[in-house]
Amino acid sequence: MRFDTVIRHGTVVTASDTFFSDVGIKDGRIAALAADLTDADEVIDATGLFVMPGGIDSHVHLDQPSGDGIVMADDFDSGTRSAAIGGNSTVLAFCMQEKGQSLREALKIYHAKAEGKCHVDVAFHLVITDPTPEVLGQELPALVEDGYTSLKVFMTYEGLRLRDDEILATLDTARRTGALVMVHCENEDAIRYLIGRHEEEGKFAPKFHAATRPVAAEREATHRALSLAEIVDVPIVIVHVSNREAMEEIRRARQRGQKIAGETCPQYLMLTADDLDQSEMEGAKYVCSPPPRDKASQDACWEGLEQGVFDLFSSDHCPFRFNDPEGKLNEKGKRHFRWIPNGIPGVATRLPILFSEGVMKGRINLNQFVAVTSTNHAKLYGLYPRKGTIAIGADADIALWDPDKRITVTNDILQHGADYTPYEGQEVRGWPMHLLLGGKTIVKDGLLTQQKVRGSYLHRNRSSLVPRGERHR
Amino acid sequence: MRFDTVIRHGTVVTASDTFFSDVGIKDGRIAALAADLTDADEVIDATGLFVMPGGIDSHVHLDQPSGDGIVMADDFDSGTRSAAIGGNSTVLAFCMQEKGQSLREALKIYHAKAEGKCHVDVAFHLVITDPTPEVLGQELPALVEDGYTSLKVFMTYEGLRLRDDEILATLDTARRTGALVMVHCENEDAIRYLIGRHEEEGKFAPKFHAATRPVAAEREATHRALSLAEIVDVPIVIVHVSNREAMEEIRRARQRGQKIAGETCPQYLMLTADDLDQSEMEGAKYVCSPPPRDKASQDACWEGLEQGVFDLFSSDHCPFRFNDPEGKLNEKGKRHFRWIPNGIPGVATRLPILFSEGVMKGRINLNQFVAVTSTNHAKLYGLYPRKGTIAIGADADIALWDPDKRITVTNDILQHGADYTPYEGQEVRGWPMHLLLGGKTIVKDGLLTQQKVRGSYLHRNRSSLVPRGERHR
Amino acid sequence: MRFDTVIRHGTVVTASDTFFSDVGIKDGRIAALAADLTDADEVIDATGLFVMPGGIDSHVHLDQPSGDGIVMADDFDSGTRSAAIGGNSTVLAFCMQEKGQSLREALKIYHAKAEGKCHVDVAFHLVITDPTPEVLGQELPALVEDGYTSLKVFMTYEGLRLRDDEILATLDTARRTGALVMVHCENEDAIRYLIGRHEEEGKFAPKFHAATRPVAAEREATHRALSLAEIVDVPIVIVHVSNREAMEEIRRARQRGQKIAGETCPQYLMLTADDLDQSEMEGAKYVCSPPPRDKASQDACWEGLEQGVFDLFSSDHCPFRFNDPEGKLNEKGKRHFRWIPNGIPGVATRLPILFSEGVMKGRINLNQFVAVTSTNHAKLYGLYPRKGTIAIGADADIALWDPDKRITVTNDILQHGADYTPYEGQEVRGWPMHLLLGGKTIVKDGLLTQQKVRGSYLHRNRSSLVPRGERHR
Amino acid sequence: MRFDTVIRHGTVVTASDTFFSDVGIKDGRIAALAADLTDADEVIDATGLFVMPGGIDSHVHLDQPSGDGIVMADDFDSGTRSAAIGGNSTVLAFCMQEKGQSLREALKIYHAKAEGKCHVDVAFHLVITDPTPEVLGQELPALVEDGYTSLKVFMTYEGLRLRDDEILATLDTARRTGALVMVHCENEDAIRYLIGRHEEEGKFAPKFHAATRPVAAEREATHRALSLAEIVDVPIVIVHVSNREAMEEIRRARQRGQKIAGETCPQYLMLTADDLDQSEMEGAKYVCSPPPRDKASQDACWEGLEQGVFDLFSSDHCPFRFNDPEGKLNEKGKRHFRWIPNGIPGVATRLPILFSEGVMKGRINLNQFVAVTSTNHAKLYGLYPRKGTIAIGADADIALWDPDKRITVTNDILQHGADYTPYEGQEVRGWPMHLLLGGKTIVKDGLLTQQKVRGSYLHRNRSSLVPRGERHR
Repeated sequence: MRFDTVIRHGTVVTASDTFFSDVGIKDGRIAALAADLTDADEVIDATGLFVMPGGIDSHVHLDQPSGDGIVMADDFDSGTRSAAIGGNSTVLAFCMQEKGQSLREALKIYHAKAEGKCHVDVAFHLVITDPTPEVLGQELPALVEDGYTSLKVFMTYEGLRLRDDEILATLDTARRTGALVMVHCENEDAIRYLIGRHEEEGKFAPKFHAATRPVAAEREATHRALSLAEIVDVPIVIVHVSNREAMEEIRRARQRGQKIAGETCPQYLMLTADDLDQSEMEGAKYVCSPPPRDKASQDACWEGLEQGVFDLFSSDHCPFRFNDPEGKLNEKGKRHFRWIPNGIPGVATRLPILFSEGVMKGRINLNQFVAVTSTNHAKLYGLYPRKGTIAIGADADIALWDPDKRITVTNDILQHGADYTPYEGQEVRGWPMHLLLGGKTIVKDGLLTQQKVRGSYLHRNRSSLVPRGERHR
Repeated sequence: MRFDTVIRHGTVVTASDTFFSDVGIKDGRIAALAADLTDADEVIDATGLFVMPGGIDSHVHLDQPSGDGIVMADDFDSGTRSAAIGGNSTVLAFCMQEKGQSLREALKIYHAKAEGKCHVDVAFHLVITDPTPEVLGQELPALVEDGYTSLKVFMTYEGLRLRDDEILATLDTARRTGALVMVHCENEDAIRYLIGRHEEEGKFAPKFHAATRPVAAEREATHRALSLAEIVDVPIVIVHVSNREAMEEIRRARQRGQKIAGETCPQYLMLTADDLDQSEMEGAKYVCSPPPRDKASQDACWEGLEQGVFDLFSSDHCPFRFNDPEGKLNEKGKRHFRWIPNGIPGVATRLPILFSEGVMKGRINLNQFVAVTSTNHAKLYGLYPRKGTIAIGADADIALWDPDKRITVTNDILQHGADYTPYEGQEVRGWPMHLLLGGKTIVKDGLLTQQKVRGSYLHRNRSSLVPRGERHR
Repeated sequence: MRFDTVIRHGTVVTASDTFFSDVGIKDGRIAALAADLTDADEVIDATGLFVMPGGIDSHVHLDQPSGDGIVMADDFDSGTRSAAIGGNSTVLAFCMQEKGQSLREALKIYHAKAEGKCHVDVAFHLVITDPTPEVLGQELPALVEDGYTSLKVFMTYEGLRLRDDEILATLDTARRTGALVMVHCENEDAIRYLIGRHEEEGKFAPKFHAATRPVAAEREATHRALSLAEIVDVPIVIVHVSNREAMEEIRRARQRGQKIAGETCPQYLMLTADDLDQSEMEGAKYVCSPPPRDKASQDACWEGLEQGVFDLFSSDHCPFRFNDPEGKLNEKGKRHFRWIPNGIPGVATRLPILFSEGVMKGRINLNQFVAVTSTNHAKLYGLYPRKGTIAIGADADIALWDPDKRITVTNDILQHGADYTPYEGQEVRGWPMHLLLGGKTIVKDGLLTQQKVRGSYLHRNRSSLVPRGERHR
Repeated sequence: MRFDTVIRHGTVVTASDTFFSDVGIKDGRIAALAADLTDADEVIDATGLFVMPGGIDSHVHLDQPSGDGIVMADDFDSGTRSAAIGGNSTVLAFCMQEKGQSLREALKIYHAKAEGKCHVDVAFHLVITDPTPEVLGQELPALVEDGYTSLKVFMTYEGLRLRDDEILATLDTARRTGALVMVHCENEDAIRYLIGRHEEEGKFAPKFHAATRPVAAEREATHRALSLAEIVDVPIVIVHVSNREAMEEIRRARQRGQKIAGETCPQYLMLTADDLDQSEMEGAKYVCSPPPRDKASQDACWEGLEQGVFDLFSSDHCPFRFNDPEGKLNEKGKRHFRWIPNGIPGVATRLPILFSEGVMKGRINLNQFVAVTSTNHAKLYGLYPRKGTIAIGADADIALWDPDKRITVTNDILQHGADYTPYEGQEVRGWPMHLLLGGKTIVKDGLLTQQKVRGSYLHRNRSSLVPRGERHR
């Protein structure tokens, strides 16, 4: 067989296996694994490199409106550019329903935002903020059939949070249609109560963002989301878990027999609430929700990755410019932490940080790395076996990692729209030097090649977590 | 010293001690403990009997309106009469705020209901159903100072349930005033969701009352109540725990360092959901919330009593007549379980059941019996040391128990207003043959003496669970 | 009634109750509790004082041989003198069987040691080091009938430790006779292994005593002891628990349904392994087994006291002189930590430390203090209701505590034989100013009165933890 | 490329992936994965079949002496023949050291037993029964270097069990050499104690085998083994876990940070102690250790497989003939259960049972099946990447499974030496119809092909669980 491209002399890594093999690519897909594949138009030498499935970041916010004149720092162009730099070939972004809006309308808007701008493949989760009978009963079943197979609901943020009856109705629709629901778990009322107490005491600095969103508020909402899913009898994803207590709730739910996926993010491994406690508003850079916690929480999140409590390691990329009146340092935010937009950039740093701190420091192995950064995302969000692995027939989305490359993270190399990275100056060992999307090289020697924008929109199947059978036909 | 009354030759039992002693009573109080007290107007022979503090039942519903023409089967006359028959010298009933009503108004009504009718001492918990700023900010602080030191909130029942923000506000008032909050923990939205699914499937029989209020709905609300209390930093009471999962939430909260009291009830030791599954609406007799569960849950509740997870063993007496259009068999209830009034009678059977099944069968000892049926109620609800023990200066509220008395429970001996008891035919060993209230005999040989009604209303101190200090001055 | 002595105007505290009452004493026993007892030969004014049962220290080593020329610093004279100073009216010491020795022989020796020297009441636990069929089958059943109703076995110390088959045989004898077995839980083989590794690395300083007896070695032995007791179906006492992991094993055993008592000691609340890490052998002062751990372990032990995991708070008084070739600084011990005798003095400081750090700092209440320092010891070791409470008929062993007395602990006030206290300089609030033994004052204003030695040997009943019934007749 | 053999049109399954691909085999190894491989000497049609790595059964007893004239029913011929029938291409058997014997001597004997008889590939674990300094200090380090990289120790069976100090010494050698230790966890002394009590009561029937080896004895030894490994700081494998309590000990050890592998077996999913309670000695068929437990334990073991507590699913094949004086029904065994040889046959039924009950019933997915039956065995026991997966360069040990094949298990199809199977009459869905060993077909249409015996002895690398680094050089 003649190939379009072959990757030679590398070490192929999947979620379970590690072996020497060449990789033959034809028509954008992986066509052969074998030694000594030579008959190809293009030969890429992967000697000394790991040949891994491209990263899939299933938790990325791009070009979402935030209200009050706040502007998200990345659109689909800069955001997916940064994703590619960081070794990702697919990102799952959010299509946010506005109150009163139909999901079809929202999708039209988000497809327009993404159209022609995506450097990597993209799909949307549907954020449900207005679960009317029309939305749940009519629109969603049709959209799930059309390949929008995952939803997200919020238990926090005024205007976004759903009440329990709304969550139950949404979960019930998921049960009937075979969609998978992601839940942001923090108890909004508890947070509002604590903000009130802090306001009484004149506490308005960024660090009080963390103090008003305590572990108990996250643990409570996590337990509640898990319980509602238990009652409806439907799997869910608990996203961005930040601490041991919430993590243990996931463990307990599984021990009750529930099908649950868990996610954590780099900020919960690398940052703490102390990062918010800096002079001159510097702490605003680290304001995100849930907030980073403490060293013990970092250890817990590592434990969760090592032991399989967390299936997913995502960025929760949600970028805002720091020194910008439309970003972190807007006028109201300077006076009260609650107006600092929540979120940090991270789509480019997710993989190098986990590779360096996780794999190279011996906390997880290469196969675990592939599983939690790519394969499990593909399986849980209905992209497998097209995405997420190195196997015959899969899209040739391949990252070549050099485990010996040492990089000092600086904001300029990340190519996102934010004017800072929380990891400025962090040294990492290992970097995705080369990235193929559908068999085409889009990153070479760590830099984007100046080719046309090749990302496609991905229609998805149902999640591997969703039971098969008659129920959602 | 000359006494009004002495109890001779009995075995005094307190929450920690068991010893032979006579008891000398003067002016309604316990004046002396010693051997050979003889100089008295009245001598009661307690040879072979246990001399225990009178029972305190801190969870009793009397003369509450239920809407829809449903009538509670006991007013303060019959209810406290039945309480006395069952060995209780004090009951804590509920004063239920109606929506839009001030607490003072509600209290006026309930004091009028109770006035002149109480065979035992009585106090009110305030049920908060409309926590307006006025109620929380103005009324409650004054009422707590006046001795109404406990509140109750519901997380279930349409019209009664509070939202999280309302619970938080109520807990915050408790924190500031030193009141203690009792919480009925079941997730109303989850129950409504499940009722909806059962209605779709045409399931309307009494047994579906249990199926639509599953353990997960109780566990969720329990965890939420505990978390909100953790966030506010205030002790609470989790009432009528029915199963292991909710119980374990209490254990975990304590291990986090929270101050929590836990309560269980006879129905969770003696009944199961199978009791609701009987032909011809018979199951309606056992409809209460949370519903009885299964054998494993009974074992868990016994474990909780033995190991101190539960401080309180109460009746949750909430009586309705069975064969009555104003009771269990109302017209709507016959067609749909949700219209069967929730609750079962139990104020008379609480103590004999625990004595017989607990003490006489070796599951708990006499001191634990006194603790969970009397002393802890007094301490937790601000009646100690006036009530709840046999000690110098305490009210002479004393029950004399004959451990060898065998009784078959039948409805007619209980003297409550309901036309049935869930424990009909149950054989018990041990009975409170004699009861003194403030030194006066009100039950003799198991029967009420025909004296005047002697019960008083009790103004209460703050709970032993509430931290002392400046905070709530 | 005329009394020998009355204690007036004090606040009586028992394990469950707190009330104002005078106490009338006659013939060495508590004869009356009442207000205004005046007719007495002697009146003690307890205004402002707590009238508590005298402390019972159920874990005290006195006048035991240690081999190698090491001499225990206290005999029954100095040890019980120090106990009285510290508010104790009863101590339970150990009668240590030597290999090859009959228990009767051992008892003869220990009774001779104690005879005429005891300032407080005393009883012996029997330490079983040679559980021959003769000892278990013949001697022990007779001795249990004679009132030696508790045994102790060691899982550590060469020459003392029993193998599992020996522990099982001893537990089986306990099951048949109704004796209660105390277990010192540390895995000897694991410790020897670690000592070997430390020796290889030339690590001989006192601090390595702690490093070679890690939490895992204690947790393992604790779990094993609990499992063997589960298999034999017999209650046991886990003594001197030092950390969370061992404590959680007790919790889990109880949740399996086992009857288990747990004990902790002042050193696990107040000291850490860092205390062993001092220059110039100073660390030898703190060498005891299990060793003190860390701050988190202290917190765990406090939690265990607060939540009832620990029934017993004892001293494990095991005194050696520090600056003495027959004590801590013997020649071999200077060269290798394993020759430093294990143990610290504490019989005098146990109660003041818990009162000050526990009661006065709000961690436990007065009733919990009485329970874990006196009442539970009496109940668990068969001395109740003669000892351990303020009740009619009990021995008049009474300590009067002044909660406002501030004392700085120094070695000279403790009157034990050791030349140091680990708590030198510790400030405490609250002190047992006055102590009565059998109605006679033995400590007044904090000093021993120069009366004759009044302590008696106590024959004991079976433990409250042991099931009643036919089994051990 | 021309292949020796290609497998066409099948669905390849690895521990993480499932994809359509042909498999090209050359020189005994997997040489290519691609669509449409056609150029081969032999073409195997796998349409509708799963192409999986051959099973690796890492817990198989073959041709071991049992003493007392008892004869194991399988030698390496019949045992590996049966293994192949059941879809296995590799078995790990035990080389049992006799007391006083050197390991080299033992190996010489076992290699002789295996020589020329193995129908599948084979390697030996070394059973250490006499851990002398010579054995641990001299022999073992050399043998580990020679590829005998796993050891097994017993905590039960007189004559085999090691004491804690011996286990510690063995674990220490493992730590220094990089060997992996498997532990059979049951407390021998506890079992002996219970046997004694049963003998007193005249209880000798097979069912008392289960009663005298209770869960507590397994849980205790499991906790102890884990603790000793924690103290030495070395990974271990807990083999044949039978119940929840032992399983939870593994979970807790991992949560403490230990590296632990866990194993369960078909008998703990399919049998219960009731199977031992049959008339006429029929129960002897099911005598194995640990014994099967109850339904709840089966559920726990399934949970452990689903959730990854168990890495390994092995047979613990240990076959004895039933109706044979040299087997289960030997003369002494008829009179006392303790003389019934422990063990059941299972090497042929392991995979079909898990496929049918696990995969086809939806409890685990295909990838989990491959992981726990093949890949993890290869990784944990140093055979990966040569064995345990379908990947380039791996041995062409491949099983072709027909998921629709329905088979009723009967003893005659299993081809082992035992005269019974515990699963007689069990219907299974799915069967390994075709098996290749090193590229050669050894099973075709479910029957052994009559070719020469092709199994080789495998020298192994160190376990994936063993930390890399300087320590064990």
